[in-house]
Amino acid sequence: MKRFYIEKAGEFVGKEVTIKGWLYNKRDSGKVKFLLLRDGTGIMQAVMVKGEVENGVFECFNSLTQESSLIVTGKVREDKRSPGGYELSIKGIEIVQLAQSYPITPKEHGVGFLMDYRHLWLRSKRQHAIMRIRAEIIQACQDYLNTNGFTLIDAPIFTPSACEGTTTLFGVDYFGKKAYLTQSGQLYNEAAAMAFGKVYCFGPAFRAEKAKTRRHLTEFWQVEPEMAYARLEETIEVCEELLLFILKRVLERRREELKRLERDISFLEGIRPPFPRISYDEALQILKERGIELEWGEDFGAPHETALSQKFDTPFFVHRYPAQCKAFYMKRDGEAPHLALCVDGLAPEGYGEIIGGGEREDDLETLKERLEEYNLPEEAFQWYLDLRRFGSVPHAGFGLGIERTVAWICGLSHVREAIPFPRMLDRIRP
Amino acid sequence: MKRFYIEKAGEFVGKEVTIKGWLYNKRDSGKVKFLLLRDGTGIMQAVMVKGEVENGVFECFNSLTQESSLIVTGKVREDKRSPGGYELSIKGIEIVQLAQSYPITPKEHGVGFLMDYRHLWLRSKRQHAIMRIRAEIIQACQDYLNTNGFTLIDAPIFTPSACEGTTTLFGVDYFGKKAYLTQSGQLYNEAAAMAFGKVYCFGPAFRAEKAKTRRHLTEFWQVEPEMAYARLEETIEVCEELLLFILKRVLERRREELKRLERDISFLEGIRPPFPRISYDEALQILKERGIELEWGEDFGAPHETALSQKFDTPFFVHRYPAQCKAFYMKRDGEAPHLALCVDGLAPEGYGEIIGGGEREDDLETLKERLEEYNLPEEAFQWYLDLRRFGSVPHAGFGLGIERTVAWICGLSHVREAIPFPRMLDRIRP
Repeated sequence: MKRFYIEKAGEFVGKEVTIKGWLYNKRDSGKVKFLLLRDGTGIMQAVMVKGEVENGVFECFNSLTQESSLIVTGKVREDKRSPGGYELSIKGIEIVQLAQSYPITPKEHGVGFLMDYRHLWLRSKRQHAIMRIRAEIIQACQDYLNTNGFTLIDAPIFTPSACEGTTTLFGVDYFGKKAYLTQSGQLYNEAAAMAFGKVYCFGPAFRAEKAKTRRHLTEFWQVEPEMAYARLEETIEVCEELLLFILKRVLERRREELKRLERDISFLEGIRPPFPRISYDEALQILKERGIELEWGEDFGAPHETALSQKFDTPFFVHRYPAQCKAFYMKRDGEAPHLALCVDGLAPEGYGEIIGGGEREDDLETLKERLEEYNLPEEAFQWYLDLRRFGSVPHAGFGLGIERTVAWICGLSHVREAIPFPRMLDRIRP
Repeated sequence: MKRFYIEKAGEFVGKEVTIKGWLYNKRDSGKVKFLLLRDGTGIMQAVMVKGEVENGVFECFNSLTQESSLIVTGKVREDKRSPGGYELSIKGIEIVQLAQSYPITPKEHGVGFLMDYRHLWLRSKRQHAIMRIRAEIIQACQDYLNTNGFTLIDAPIFTPSACEGTTTLFGVDYFGKKAYLTQSGQLYNEAAAMAFGKVYCFGPAFRAEKAKTRRHLTEFWQVEPEMAYARLEETIEVCEELLLFILKRVLERRREELKRLERDISFLEGIRPPFPRISYDEALQILKERGIELEWGEDFGAPHETALSQKFDTPFFVHRYPAQCKAFYMKRDGEAPHLALCVDGLAPEGYGEIIGGGEREDDLETLKERLEEYNLPEEAFQWYLDLRRFGSVPHAGFGLGIERTVAWICGLSHVREAIPFPRMLDRIRP
């Protein structure tokens, strides 16, 4: 018989099974003892009644501590009142290890304490649900891209030069030379797109953020698609499709986890395309109406994004930012050269930016001028300029931040819970 | 009509289509001009005959340089003699950009030169084929694990301490403190396995290898599954299943690419389970028969692996190495405590190790003793010891190196071609 897992309990009704797991909680009502067991896939209530199991089994109940590892056999019964809808009638209990006094108890703990015990905290219901949704979101990204003609081409992590200044880069001693950890695979993606048409990279990126905010990690994951022969509008469409694909997948497969997080599922279900597309200028106007003044040419900060994203009930796109506040590689709008052909994708409900992208400058001479304007060393970018020398084409792409997307879909107040082992200014353990 | 891509040419026979791509090569036989076009998904021959296209189109042929970006319209015809089986009868050519003199020509170039132009080299047939197989192998790993109950739990890249000594670790200045780049997510996977049962991480890992060998990169990718309540034998079975799944997938979906690499496909097709399982002691005996003496207790080096892997026609497993040459966390064999319950998976044909794994020590006191024996600071491993305090269970896992697996399946002589942008002792560009 195949191995039993709690999440598949429905396939085993009436059968005797073995759960290899841990004691999540227990409850005693005298002649009836309740064990809440978890096996990594779910939590199931197991019950034993005095006289119906061997005395030795029944008596061991008192010794069982939270998180003790147990192998429990018994029969699966359908039980509507039970959490999950199924219950186990215990026949035998094998104690693998009695756990020492578990540091995480039902009482309230501070986040600092819980983060110190992140390696254990992941076992709790809420963190378990978040991580399963995270895994589903990542898989959705991969599935969408793999089935839509994108080839995975991993960008390097070690990079010789900084593409947007070195102030937020982590330096590494690379055999006596200086190297940096990547902030984005985009430049390499552009090379790959010229070879494979549609590509993506998926991996960790690093930002030496000195600020403590609820949206920043020093180590985060992102998926970055890039397309040859693509323009801004097409890119926004792909962003929209990808977000819809992710949402649909999570709603289909991780509904139980969303419930456990008390996420407003009907809000997520109500999200329909097309998502609004507004220009930077229109966004400024919206901010003004809300009493927030921002000088034209300034990039949005967290407060502006939050204000904007409270206005919408779906993700939305802000395009055509002032070129002056954006990176050197962004292509300018032919009809309004003070604007960049870029787009940010923002999540609603105050969450703000989860996507950034746009068209890339594809003209050799223009790109050289930009490097000079931005005080970047042309030498370090010769390989990147080569892409404009040898069959340059219009191309565009974007990056989607995994933790920010997870935080929004799960309804988290801070991205630190959206990654298994968060790294921040003051946190590199465990 | 949906966008045309060369790899789907068969669906468009008799239809007029547009190829957005680049000129891979051209050939002139007077009144008939041949363009080899690539669009990232494949290469297709396009033909024009004098008098059958507008003069302007026909005459532009001479100006077209290698890797010029072109938008070509025409009708798809089936043609058995044509590479790929389909041909385009050209109607129009729009030149997007005439490429400058392309540095990579059909003549032989040295690997150093080609690596300097890695951003362009990826466009060539051979590199294109390797990268598509790489992407397929990665997707196969993810699909196998996702459909077999493993949850993706990303391990951190920044780690505060070294798990197997610091000599091959890259150090990072982490806001004034010392951090290291991960060599393996295993320790974190163990924490995750206690929360999710079966988990894996997939990401880059880093090794400051000072040696130049054909099997080492400073930055490489690996997939690392970990299972709670699992033993060595079950782990070896999962390794075998995963390798078979990968092989089947590549043979199904990337046969054209294998042909392009002139890989011996019948060899790969002939691989059948079960893969041989031999002990370290048996491996020593095989080496001895081949005239290679190795003292008991020494780990295998590249020459030993190569010699062993020439003996087998399938991947094979070597288990139960001397504990003294293995890491502190490996569980010892209860029946022979001088042996570790570990396994290496080796590819045949001289390729050697692609997998390393085994059971992890799950007893608190034993693990503390090991840390002391290995001169590792207990303080840094408190969180890891916690996994043995709070519901410890037998558990095991392994890591599969992506580049080594790609190199073997593609039949490459060096792992540097198995990754888009290789990083080595003397290579961090482009």
